[in-house]
Amino acid sequence: MSNPSSETLSPLLFHSQSGQPESLSEQLLGMKGASLVKLASLGAPVPPGFILATDLCARVSASNGDLHGAISDAIGKGLSQLEELSGLKFGDPADPLLISLRYSSPLPVPNQPQTVLYLGLSVTAPDKACARHGQSRVGWDALFRLVRNFGTEVNGLSRFEFDDILSTVLDEEMVESQHELSAEAAEKVARSALEHYRQQAGREFPQDPRSQLEEAVMAFISRWHSARTRAYVWEQGLDDLPGPALVVQQMIVGTGDKASLAGRFSTHVPGSGERRPHGQFLQSAQGVDLTAGLRMTESIARLEKTHPETYSQLQDWAEKLMAHFKDALDIQFTVEEGKLWLLHSRPSSRTARASLKIALELADKGICTEREALRLINPNVVEEFLHPVLDKHHAEGPLTKGLPASPGSAVGQVVFFAEHAVELAAKGIRTILVRHETTPEDIDGLKVADGIVTVHGGLTSHAAVVARGMGKCCVVGAGEITVNYHINDMNIKGRTVSRNDWISIDGNTGEIFLGQLPQVQPKLEGGMARVLEWADKYRRLGVRANADTAEDAERAVEMGAGGIGLCRTEHMFFEIDRIPVFRKMILAQDEKGRSEALVELLPLQREDFAGLLRVMDGRPVTIRLLDPPLHEFLPRGIRSQSRMAKAMGVPVEEVQRRIEHLNENNPMMGHRGCRLAVTYPEIYAMQVRAIMEASVIVKREGKKVCPEIMVPLISSPRELRVLREQIEKVIQDVRQETGEDVPVKIGTMIETPRAAVNSRAIAHWADFYSFGTNDLTQMGFGFSRDDTGVFLPAYLEQNILDIDPFIQLDKHGIGRMVDIAVQDGRKSNPDIKLGICGEHGGEPESVKFCHGLGLDYVSCSPFRIPVARLAAGQAAVDDPGSEND
Amino acid sequence: MSNPSSETLSPLLFHSQSGQPESLSEQLLGMKGASLVKLASLGAPVPPGFILATDLCARVSASNGDLHGAISDAIGKGLSQLEELSGLKFGDPADPLLISLRYSSPLPVPNQPQTVLYLGLSVTAPDKACARHGQSRVGWDALFRLVRNFGTEVNGLSRFEFDDILSTVLDEEMVESQHELSAEAAEKVARSALEHYRQQAGREFPQDPRSQLEEAVMAFISRWHSARTRAYVWEQGLDDLPGPALVVQQMIVGTGDKASLAGRFSTHVPGSGERRPHGQFLQSAQGVDLTAGLRMTESIARLEKTHPETYSQLQDWAEKLMAHFKDALDIQFTVEEGKLWLLHSRPSSRTARASLKIALELADKGICTEREALRLINPNVVEEFLHPVLDKHHAEGPLTKGLPASPGSAVGQVVFFAEHAVELAAKGIRTILVRHETTPEDIDGLKVADGIVTVHGGLTSHAAVVARGMGKCCVVGAGEITVNYHINDMNIKGRTVSRNDWISIDGNTGEIFLGQLPQVQPKLEGGMARVLEWADKYRRLGVRANADTAEDAERAVEMGAGGIGLCRTEHMFFEIDRIPVFRKMILAQDEKGRSEALVELLPLQREDFAGLLRVMDGRPVTIRLLDPPLHEFLPRGIRSQSRMAKAMGVPVEEVQRRIEHLNENNPMMGHRGCRLAVTYPEIYAMQVRAIMEASVIVKREGKKVCPEIMVPLISSPRELRVLREQIEKVIQDVRQETGEDVPVKIGTMIETPRAAVNSRAIAHWADFYSFGTNDLTQMGFGFSRDDTGVFLPAYLEQNILDIDPFIQLDKHGIGRMVDIAVQDGRKSNPDIKLGICGEHGGEPESVKFCHGLGLDYVSCSPFRIPVARLAAGQAAVDDPGSEND
Repeated sequence: MSNPSSETLSPLLFHSQSGQPESLSEQLLGMKGASLVKLASLGAPVPPGFILATDLCARVSASNGDLHGAISDAIGKGLSQLEELSGLKFGDPADPLLISLRYSSPLPVPNQPQTVLYLGLSVTAPDKACARHGQSRVGWDALFRLVRNFGTEVNGLSRFEFDDILSTVLDEEMVESQHELSAEAAEKVARSALEHYRQQAGREFPQDPRSQLEEAVMAFISRWHSARTRAYVWEQGLDDLPGPALVVQQMIVGTGDKASLAGRFSTHVPGSGERRPHGQFLQSAQGVDLTAGLRMTESIARLEKTHPETYSQLQDWAEKLMAHFKDALDIQFTVEEGKLWLLHSRPSSRTARASLKIALELADKGICTEREALRLINPNVVEEFLHPVLDKHHAEGPLTKGLPASPGSAVGQVVFFAEHAVELAAKGIRTILVRHETTPEDIDGLKVADGIVTVHGGLTSHAAVVARGMGKCCVVGAGEITVNYHINDMNIKGRTVSRNDWISIDGNTGEIFLGQLPQVQPKLEGGMARVLEWADKYRRLGVRANADTAEDAERAVEMGAGGIGLCRTEHMFFEIDRIPVFRKMILAQDEKGRSEALVELLPLQREDFAGLLRVMDGRPVTIRLLDPPLHEFLPRGIRSQSRMAKAMGVPVEEVQRRIEHLNENNPMMGHRGCRLAVTYPEIYAMQVRAIMEASVIVKREGKKVCPEIMVPLISSPRELRVLREQIEKVIQDVRQETGEDVPVKIGTMIETPRAAVNSRAIAHWADFYSFGTNDLTQMGFGFSRDDTGVFLPAYLEQNILDIDPFIQLDKHGIGRMVDIAVQDGRKSNPDIKLGICGEHGGEPESVKFCHGLGLDYVSCSPFRIPVARLAAGQAAVDDPGSEND
Repeated sequence: MSNPSSETLSPLLFHSQSGQPESLSEQLLGMKGASLVKLASLGAPVPPGFILATDLCARVSASNGDLHGAISDAIGKGLSQLEELSGLKFGDPADPLLISLRYSSPLPVPNQPQTVLYLGLSVTAPDKACARHGQSRVGWDALFRLVRNFGTEVNGLSRFEFDDILSTVLDEEMVESQHELSAEAAEKVARSALEHYRQQAGREFPQDPRSQLEEAVMAFISRWHSARTRAYVWEQGLDDLPGPALVVQQMIVGTGDKASLAGRFSTHVPGSGERRPHGQFLQSAQGVDLTAGLRMTESIARLEKTHPETYSQLQDWAEKLMAHFKDALDIQFTVEEGKLWLLHSRPSSRTARASLKIALELADKGICTEREALRLINPNVVEEFLHPVLDKHHAEGPLTKGLPASPGSAVGQVVFFAEHAVELAAKGIRTILVRHETTPEDIDGLKVADGIVTVHGGLTSHAAVVARGMGKCCVVGAGEITVNYHINDMNIKGRTVSRNDWISIDGNTGEIFLGQLPQVQPKLEGGMARVLEWADKYRRLGVRANADTAEDAERAVEMGAGGIGLCRTEHMFFEIDRIPVFRKMILAQDEKGRSEALVELLPLQREDFAGLLRVMDGRPVTIRLLDPPLHEFLPRGIRSQSRMAKAMGVPVEEVQRRIEHLNENNPMMGHRGCRLAVTYPEIYAMQVRAIMEASVIVKREGKKVCPEIMVPLISSPRELRVLREQIEKVIQDVRQETGEDVPVKIGTMIETPRAAVNSRAIAHWADFYSFGTNDLTQMGFGFSRDDTGVFLPAYLEQNILDIDPFIQLDKHGIGRMVDIAVQDGRKSNPDIKLGICGEHGGEPESVKFCHGLGLDYVSCSPFRIPVARLAAGQAAVDDPGSEND
């Protein structure tokens, strides 16, 4: 704001009768300030105070001290209004107006200062100043709190050292908490704190109340410029934020002896979402003491007995505020000498499951609309209803713990080889497959096992991705396990578990138990179905499935998929009847040899595609042409290589020579994706033919078909043009041969950063894009997801990254590339369809981000489809542009 | 242009007396049109014609035929003006006005139509129409040329099939070229062409002259919308280009019998740049016949004898035009019945070496200024003067040929192991090291060998990069060589070459010769030094060197480096006395073990850095902290592993276990760069200490020091913040310990795409960026440069990529990322210094691109510094913004 005479340079007064306009924004008042003004405007008993608005603070901050006078004036004006309202005087040695100073940022940023309480307290005789509230202890305790928080927030001293002073005296006095201290002991604590302050800060603690307050205000304002806050603000692109507002508010003293207490009142039980008052309180305390853990809190239910009138007032206010805020609430309150004051009200914390129950209740009672209720639900709740959970009531502790890679639970006999899993499954025996790590060769075992455990690998390792795709329970990175493949057992902290022993695993926690634990299937409450209906009604994003087989496709349709967004054709080549033929193609020396093998594969692929198209019956089916490097299809171990050589009638050396030849230093960035097609065009030609012939077959069966052909890994427009011409030629051939004209879209994956920034030229050749955010994340960060296990944990631990970017789409980097590709692509091809088919397509935050980017659909594992539907619905109702839909 | 009555909707007439304004732009007239108008305005004897401007053609094209009338009107108007000027009549059966139609694109685009000649010729009696020019043959030949080019460009028929018709008759008549045909034979050719046209086009060849011309015009206009042209235009971001202009010009008949000829006159000899008329001509021919290769051309010197007047006119015009265009020129001309016509004039083609000679000559003669002369030089010329060349006059043909990876030549005895190279070098014997491929372990051998040959690997393989860095001749990818390490020989197409045999290699051509060829050092003409002075005077870009040792640094200064832009500290660890200590650090189990090894390395690194800083004496020295993954420092072969284990006194299994543990699937995207520092902060701490202590030592010696510390491979701002804090702490420690305050910049490499798009937040923590365009290219394209050998050749062959993006910076993709990073980075940190230190820093086109992006400097191998200086100078004088510097 450039106008220096702006209204907001004055302090903004609020109190419970103030009738402030509700519209003063968080941008101006900060979040806490806006919430207090709102409560006041509803007539709630909030302690009166005034706000130094964000623009005033920003101007003071920018002026390098020139505007110190302005802020001092504003404080003076605000204080005299508060004195008038409260009838107390700031700095009065007896019963003064006490002040709390709160930081009120317009957005949640890290490193905010803690509230400083008891500003304006006499440093020399706090006991006298607080005499009204009870014994001298109250005053000395207040002084200690003032010195500690002031020292910490204004002078940057260590909070721990102040708390040590308190602990020492508590120990000497053999009591648990400061409210039990004698007045003498409390005085000792306060005086020690003052002395500690003097030593550390190199000066006396400021005696003048006004100086205390102004110093604290200036320190709070400058906090916005601390390196940590700056870093965050820059990173989030929030450079334009004006900085914090400050709330200067009358202190309510809850530490007094007479009917004074502090507490938290929740309208619902956080764990279950049941509608029943919940919360805690402490006698003679401030709110901060509730979480300090020094005193045993009392249940809010007890308040009904000890302070029935307060309890009933709280209930009344809870009802009123819930009706207004249309949500379950936590209310912070303090009672001073019997009078109830509300300090803060915010949406209550709750488990995912509780969020569902609360949303349904509020909608049913008409407290909020469907749209509003939809926003209240934690989308992770969906998953809880899809998988059985272990009943651990009678279990011993877990043997060990790994990373929870795919939710649910599994109970089975331990096997260490895929073939053993297949063997036992044939006999109807449940198994848990335990491996160092899994590879595509283990696919048959992964399919039949009930659960999967790996010793190595992270949340995006092969096992984790495949398991999530199958909706199968999986624990990875269980590093305490030592597997001995030779003798078919494993050792966990000295304990041996052998093949065929029973174990139980929990994919939600990563725990591994010995023996057969009972499994309980959570009841899929009807509410879930209703909520998904709401989501479907409002969402703009389509939700498709990543599905490779007709079986997957059936599940996808059950889960509500509107199509298939990614069919990975290579998975079909791993099937037991295809891999030998596919390997024959790889071993072929020339195009002729490859073409002969491809002729054998054609009818098999055609049948695969026909199966998929049949199930999807007119819904779009996006089929990605061959993607992985060829060496992934060749066996690694010498034994398998010998078997392969024998089966193919060639010397094992030839197999090894070929494997050696195909070996790559960085296979992720090597000869794969459409690069295979540039060098071996016949592979894609076979696949396109299979897709088009399958489409004709299914069409002639009287079903609808909507195939979409997707070219992976392009990095330049001419690549797509050349391949598109080849693909169109095959389509034309099949059209002429069959006389059937099946409309088909041809598009591409955007998964190299170069493709993303070159989207304007690429979009001319693409009917659709599907963002392959897994690879885009790998190449964008330069993080090989197979190799991040060594350093990514350190990145998360040191808070360099907030979250594994393979789990949640990285908005500022990878997301920006997607955004560039979307904007540029639509510029040159306004009709282009845009989707995402990385692992992120089933992660709620990422789905919402995709909505914001204006994508047309997300695609994810069948099991995550309900999550994606819900998240897509929430994104739509959160979108300001959709209000009038 | 939206105004339909615009002037350019009329045909724009030009002729040698027309005095056209020179300012009509290429945007409006196309390149060819603008050049003709310019020639006409200078009074040169250009055949008269008119231009259908780009905006007219674009409007006609957009109107879908509605504006056909408008273009027909323009053509009619133009034709009558031409008729008036020439005194001939279009379509006259006897001696008509004949027309050539030329395509004139505003920028060079692929797939332009060839000129159609002889439009307006009578289809039934061309012999009569051309009677003026000689025998009937002339007319029938003209008709054949008309039908062929019209059929090819308008109807899309195959040119080869028309040429086959001609060849067949030439064979029957047993003559070499059409001007030797009898009238009957020429008629047979023309009639067969007409018949072929009828069959292929499915209609008679248009008889009406006006229809011929209008059809051709419409076909030329629509060529702009062909897929290939579209693709190119989209890719280059030239969507806004209006399309071509068309030149409708009076035909000059050079095929006549009487003193008619066509030729090309060059002002300078292309190979040497000598100022002497050069060129060819053919009697009774059109210009196109000069390059068809059917007839032996005559040297332009002969023209002086046969047509002295024409020759003298050409010389006069060459002088005039050269003075005007300020460049050496190629002039295309035709003589019709003794009268000279100029058809085209353009800068002459020339070798890099000739470009230098020409530039110096023109500057010396005052024909152009220094700035103008600078633009004329091919920057590759610099390299020719830096390396000795083989004298192949008496040599047998080469044994084989590989890729020319690093220029120059080398002669030496063949060795197959680095240690043999070291052995022989100790005795003063020159060697050529031949390997399958090289690794960092071969570094000692690479240093002492005179030349390097590898069987595998491309232009950016390890050997190629190291050799270019050392300015050492290198040939890679010589796939016809089979090396047998066991018996120390190699086989090339059946020929055996053994250890200690002499070979000679040519790094400019990739040729490998048996025996000792003589080497000649090209004379570094004084002109080169002058040209580099010019470049230094005008360039805005700084030029620094990539240099790792004091020796490199000395060479860099000699070459004119303004600083060191990249010192790769890891190269220091490969030295024979350091690698064991570094390996000890890698094998250490904990921080303590690592720190102990690092304490040993500290004095060695300090001495390295002191050496560098001493040589550079106040010029900036950018030191990159450790970058490669640790496994690169461990030996690969079992024998080396055993040696290492023995030397370190540990079991070989332990060495192998550690190697196994460090093994990565995609090391390029693995645990390297600053990720090493996040997990093992003590490594960078040692390096920073070494840098700062070295700075203090050199400063106390009375020299100036300007160290810059560079963090590699960051992908997010917090990464840099955390590491910067650690680095600053060490700097502070050294400052306190020594009492010396050495100013030091801390910056980062931008080499992950995520860092490039997140530059706004990162720039807050960086004093400088250096773009690591090698890695940025790898990750942007998803091309592992070690693995592209399998598919990149196919990409270049199929024209999917114009050039290997590791050789020349890819403007549309990687360049855009750099651009985003530059713009965003300067937004948040206007003082940030920006440079590039990838291999591209010494490639002329890339250097010019960097100038355009507004970078502050480029950094390259010492040997490429003169190239970079020259290119930077050229970029500056080409920059329109620099005109008034």
